[in-house]
Amino acid sequence: MSVRIALDAMSGDYGIPVVVPAALQILNEYKHLHLILVGDATTLKHALGSQPAHLHQRLSIHHTTEVVAMDESPSHALRNKKNSSMRVAINLVKEQQADACVSAGNTGALMATARYVLKTLPGIDRPAIITAMPTMREHPTHMLDLGANVDSTAEHLFQFAVMGSVLTSAVENIENPTVGLLNVGQEKIKGNERVKQTSKLLTDSPIINYVGFIEGDDIFKGTVDVVVCDGFLGNVALKSSEGTAKLISFYLKKSLKQSLWSRTLGLLTLPILKNFSHKIDHRRYNGASLLGLRGIVIKSHGGADTIGFSYAIREAIMEVEKNVPARISHQLAQLLTT
Amino acid sequence: MSVRIALDAMSGDYGIPVVVPAALQILNEYKHLHLILVGDATTLKHALGSQPAHLHQRLSIHHTTEVVAMDESPSHALRNKKNSSMRVAINLVKEQQADACVSAGNTGALMATARYVLKTLPGIDRPAIITAMPTMREHPTHMLDLGANVDSTAEHLFQFAVMGSVLTSAVENIENPTVGLLNVGQEKIKGNERVKQTSKLLTDSPIINYVGFIEGDDIFKGTVDVVVCDGFLGNVALKSSEGTAKLISFYLKKSLKQSLWSRTLGLLTLPILKNFSHKIDHRRYNGASLLGLRGIVIKSHGGADTIGFSYAIREAIMEVEKNVPARISHQLAQLLTT
Repeated sequence: MSVRIALDAMSGDYGIPVVVPAALQILNEYKHLHLILVGDATTLKHALGSQPAHLHQRLSIHHTTEVVAMDESPSHALRNKKNSSMRVAINLVKEQQADACVSAGNTGALMATARYVLKTLPGIDRPAIITAMPTMREHPTHMLDLGANVDSTAEHLFQFAVMGSVLTSAVENIENPTVGLLNVGQEKIKGNERVKQTSKLLTDSPIINYVGFIEGDDIFKGTVDVVVCDGFLGNVALKSSEGTAKLISFYLKKSLKQSLWSRTLGLLTLPILKNFSHKIDHRRYNGASLLGLRGIVIKSHGGADTIGFSYAIREAIMEVEKNVPARISHQLAQLLTT
Repeated sequence: MSVRIALDAMSGDYGIPVVVPAALQILNEYKHLHLILVGDATTLKHALGSQPAHLHQRLSIHHTTEVVAMDESPSHALRNKKNSSMRVAINLVKEQQADACVSAGNTGALMATARYVLKTLPGIDRPAIITAMPTMREHPTHMLDLGANVDSTAEHLFQFAVMGSVLTSAVENIENPTVGLLNVGQEKIKGNERVKQTSKLLTDSPIINYVGFIEGDDIFKGTVDVVVCDGFLGNVALKSSEGTAKLISFYLKKSLKQSLWSRTLGLLTLPILKNFSHKIDHRRYNGASLLGLRGIVIKSHGGADTIGFSYAIREAIMEVEKNVPARISHQLAQLLTT
């Protein structure tokens, strides 16, 4: 089966200098892949240079010059940027010219545009953002919502659990992924009304493998396969975790530079530290999915480099191959008939 | 000035085996300190052994055998454990026999009991939990609330900002500590109604040095001196950060054990890594303060060791010396007259 992915080549902190090398690398890896680069044709052609014929056949350019700025408001982008690389990439999914799209553009604008163009699946009130997080286990934990919704109700959180279960089951090949609800403690009496109501909905559902409340540190222990939370909470948890990792790396580097002896040891230890940081390299976890839409939209981190962006494309390919939106629809239809 | 601190010797994961050595260490450091160990007199005397006379004079035992269990509900503890080591330690503060108390007991029971016995300061609806967090700067960031309140209103969050500013100003010797409100983005349009309302209250206040919204990673960058948030968010941010640190240490240790060469390097690097981890050693940040009460109550981590518990006692001494509750009262009185 051939997979066609549209890439928003103009967005993110870097645009074409990151997107084009990532595209070429992935085309070499996947022989049945066709990529559509959406952006300024002249600059794109220049960046592509002369490519071997077998790549050339699986690569096309969709010309457009408009770009959504990283700090542009979602409503402004929606009204005024109808020819932006972001909007056109999503249009290609809507028109079934692409099976998925990937953008490193601003999250708010991407979500608003994708929701407007593609619409939500039946039974889904609000799309959510999901990503994989590194854990002490072999499998990552998938966590949602990461910031699309800042005031989710119990019903919304329940829908996130359904979507998260389906995606995790598909991409990790797990039959009944375990689901945990993020709270301030594991005991039933802990938390606010919203999590208590959500917990009841999840306990009563026959299709969710719900294990109960989990806490912030459980995300990285890998206590469950799917972590469900409101977007406000998920966004803060994700960024606190990023901040902690940067803090640790800051003091580690500082310590290894303190003396000639520690610098020498630091150099010798470098390959080991590299191997270690590979395990938790955030680039390998790049590629968040906008779940609950009638189409596959992957958000790459705005500051992602070529390696990071290539992982976002891999996530898109995986979700196309596993047919994630149709699986979610199927699961929701089952829910409505039980 | 002599400082008198009551220690709940029976609570936490370890009780006396951690509290007594920490008490003796701190008595050696502070010559004007008097400690009251609250707990079973026989076991305490046995653990103390024979101490030099100068320590003996500054150490007393307040006998009680009841203990609040780590998983006991706050309401059960409040009703049924009137002679618990936790309750008696707080009573000693109320009766002005101690200037502060420290407990490693369960947070919910400690907060409920402290609030019932000591009452809140005028102008404070809900006490909050604050602690220092390591940053890339010289100063730590102080963050509140960390779990006492799971549905704070804008008014509550404003009160947290006042209390957090006063404490940080006192213990860090900063004239006008900067205050940031935890949100999902820095732009004014980001977030839910609650943070937008709180932001307005903080902007309008002449006594708060409010700098605006901050994000999860700003906590560890040290972007502001005081981070204000709802307890649900604060608790999850804190535990996500702890989880990330454990994950990194897990993979670092694993990498350093992979081969004979990496094990050798690991041993050589050990002193450097120890120096590095000292910078972010969670034990040095142990001792969260229950702010907004008519008295000083410090919560030590339940699993804290002797070093950790000694830092919680240091925090209590510092707050007594800086007279934190009176300063908060004074600031609130100023607010009411402006």
